[in-house]
Amino acid sequence: MVPHLVTALTGPINELEQRVLDSMPAIERWFRLEWMEHTPPFYSSVDVRNAGFKLAPVDTNLFPNGWNHLTPEMLPLAVQAAMAAIEKICPEARNLLVIPENNVANTGYLASLAQLQRIFHMAGLNVRLGSIDPAIKKTTVMTLPDGDSITLEPVIRGKRRLGVKDFDPCTILLNTDLSAGVPGILEEIYEQYVLPPLHAGWTTRRKSTHFKCYEEVAKRMGKLLGIDPWLINPLFEKCGEVNLAQGVGMECLSSQVDVLLGKIRRKYKEYGIKEKPFVVVKTDNGTHGMGILTVRDAKELPALSLNAKEQAGGARGAQAPHDILIQEGVLTKERMNDAVAEPVVYMMDRYVVGGFYRIHAGRGIDEDLSAPGADFVPLAFEHSTHLPQPGVRPGASAPNRFYMYGVVGRLAMLAASYELEATDPEAEVYD
Amino acid sequence: MVPHLVTALTGPINELEQRVLDSMPAIERWFRLEWMEHTPPFYSSVDVRNAGFKLAPVDTNLFPNGWNHLTPEMLPLAVQAAMAAIEKICPEARNLLVIPENNVANTGYLASLAQLQRIFHMAGLNVRLGSIDPAIKKTTVMTLPDGDSITLEPVIRGKRRLGVKDFDPCTILLNTDLSAGVPGILEEIYEQYVLPPLHAGWTTRRKSTHFKCYEEVAKRMGKLLGIDPWLINPLFEKCGEVNLAQGVGMECLSSQVDVLLGKIRRKYKEYGIKEKPFVVVKTDNGTHGMGILTVRDAKELPALSLNAKEQAGGARGAQAPHDILIQEGVLTKERMNDAVAEPVVYMMDRYVVGGFYRIHAGRGIDEDLSAPGADFVPLAFEHSTHLPQPGVRPGASAPNRFYMYGVVGRLAMLAASYELEATDPEAEVYD
Repeated sequence: MVPHLVTALTGPINELEQRVLDSMPAIERWFRLEWMEHTPPFYSSVDVRNAGFKLAPVDTNLFPNGWNHLTPEMLPLAVQAAMAAIEKICPEARNLLVIPENNVANTGYLASLAQLQRIFHMAGLNVRLGSIDPAIKKTTVMTLPDGDSITLEPVIRGKRRLGVKDFDPCTILLNTDLSAGVPGILEEIYEQYVLPPLHAGWTTRRKSTHFKCYEEVAKRMGKLLGIDPWLINPLFEKCGEVNLAQGVGMECLSSQVDVLLGKIRRKYKEYGIKEKPFVVVKTDNGTHGMGILTVRDAKELPALSLNAKEQAGGARGAQAPHDILIQEGVLTKERMNDAVAEPVVYMMDRYVVGGFYRIHAGRGIDEDLSAPGADFVPLAFEHSTHLPQPGVRPGASAPNRFYMYGVVGRLAMLAASYELEATDPEAEVYD
Repeated sequence: MVPHLVTALTGPINELEQRVLDSMPAIERWFRLEWMEHTPPFYSSVDVRNAGFKLAPVDTNLFPNGWNHLTPEMLPLAVQAAMAAIEKICPEARNLLVIPENNVANTGYLASLAQLQRIFHMAGLNVRLGSIDPAIKKTTVMTLPDGDSITLEPVIRGKRRLGVKDFDPCTILLNTDLSAGVPGILEEIYEQYVLPPLHAGWTTRRKSTHFKCYEEVAKRMGKLLGIDPWLINPLFEKCGEVNLAQGVGMECLSSQVDVLLGKIRRKYKEYGIKEKPFVVVKTDNGTHGMGILTVRDAKELPALSLNAKEQAGGARGAQAPHDILIQEGVLTKERMNDAVAEPVVYMMDRYVVGGFYRIHAGRGIDEDLSAPGADFVPLAFEHSTHLPQPGVRPGASAPNRFYMYGVVGRLAMLAASYELEATDPEAEVYD
């Protein structure tokens, strides 16, 4: 089944696709050389938006879920990549402990965990799921709608090691983004590999740092492709100490929204783009209970603040002001039937192992699709392959478009690698 | 499409399958540790025979063709493995030169070359085909039945490098088994990677060396699985200086056939196997124009010698006596409809990337299927995946059986790695 792409198949994005395809050997070599110097995140997923005139990552997840949306055709790729990842990190490993999110009530998340366990089992490891949720006090079996089941076990923390009953893992794989902070039970584990590292969690991560790193790699890829890096890079600004519900930091927010909208407007003018520019306002780390806001004019901000105040209700004093990312809004012109769609690219180690379209019938082309009501359509291609097909007319080939998405996804992964190096608390400084 | 396996689904092979599946994490770890010490061949294919009571490799090809028989579903796996292989050997590579067999009249071989070129192009290299055939004096375009075409260019040899016009490769990939000896044009290339190395050709390789190495790895895997290694290992003997057509060396041949048949008979007795033992007689390197002979009794040898004499005709004096491998014959109990089938496992670097069944309606269960009239059915599995399915009844799952074939294929590949180390003319001796 080929996702039915209704995206306009003309315009600059096809020129970009053609350049990307023509430059395939150069692009792959560039990545190979980058991976000689930098370590890819253990796994990642990247939300990509295709505006028809530009293509950009908008979110890079270093603790991806949604593995259940990968098709069976793509599983062997994930398994092979997992083998490569394990071999590189800990070839002597027998046991892998996966630490899931604490809140596992969501059936979709359970299915993703089951798939992840399956992938690493197929790659040749004994895999158990160790919960750090204080509510999980004993082994808990949860059954999935398809009859599959997963077993959560409470973790057991020794002085220097973490495990579950009768299971001492060599490697601990985090599948929780640590939004609520790093729990003590995960700290000071020096004898086991903890992957991704703790500083990949939202306690340390900042979206602005990620997109700063992305800007750098996008510039270099732009040079390699001979294109304006803006075509693959979302612009951004940031503000410190903002609390919309309390009306704190609104001057900075207002002026930065103006600045960014101005920049986008100039780019739109340069390329003759008739769309209305917009920006997306989000917290610089985690969510802090604040949604993602679409803003088309700084004048909308007072109303949004009022709205946030009402929503926060009595709890409005609870949230401390926090850093805010103001990101260029990238339209999505991709559609499946009537629903707006955005591709999500999955990677394991340095390899693209699959992806799907996140679709949302109730959302607009300038809105966040990662919301209740979203649905998922696997990127399963004609001939079940995501390999590019050189020679096919630009825009006409799903595999070719997916190759381009995979390049952008890998650029974002590379940016994450730079980001993790820059924020590593244990990095050795050589200069 | 699932190959319709008519193989008896009872008996010892299912017990083996169960042990292999149960030991998956241990097996994968064992391979990981092996690959820390040994270098896998760049690519390989292994013919496997499943007798229902034992499963063994009978031929390991280090210059595999037949890539065209891999399904599109399997291509991404091959591409990912190719990326891993390139990254390890020459990450800085831009250009790859593939040296095909000299005789490319065979359409199937051309299709295999096209596929190989496609795989390495997808992996991000500029790939050209450089012929060392003196008959190819200029760029030659050959069209395939499916409309695809491949372009052969005569190689250009510089003092230290090999290339084609305006193309200086970093790596030279041999897809010719050098049966006729190593041509001077491939010698003394010190500035480029030549893969596989020249000593992987039949000038240096000996099947008996390969199966001696295989015996070693099979013993260790047998220990890991807790099984008699004979269940995965074909016994063999050898003779030097034999020429069947000239009747030279017949005493050795006759006595070794007797010895080996005796050994097999004892094993059959031990396991209560009612089949008639047989051995396969083949040249220890290349083919020397001699086919593969099935021998059930040493008494058959004089008749076979006479037959060879007649076939050789006037040319009988041309062939010097050569070494002979006498290998335990492994029945194939696999069938597709009425045709006898044997699986062929394809590997790139350390990864199993696919496979197919070689079937031959005109041959018996104890005969070589690699003969004119053979057909190929891709190992495309239900749900398009070759991943094992733990929990499924032994013998009932094609993916589970293929996992077992992949283990045996990788054992043979590992044996080839040992073999190439042992025969490396440039090996440094540390003791």
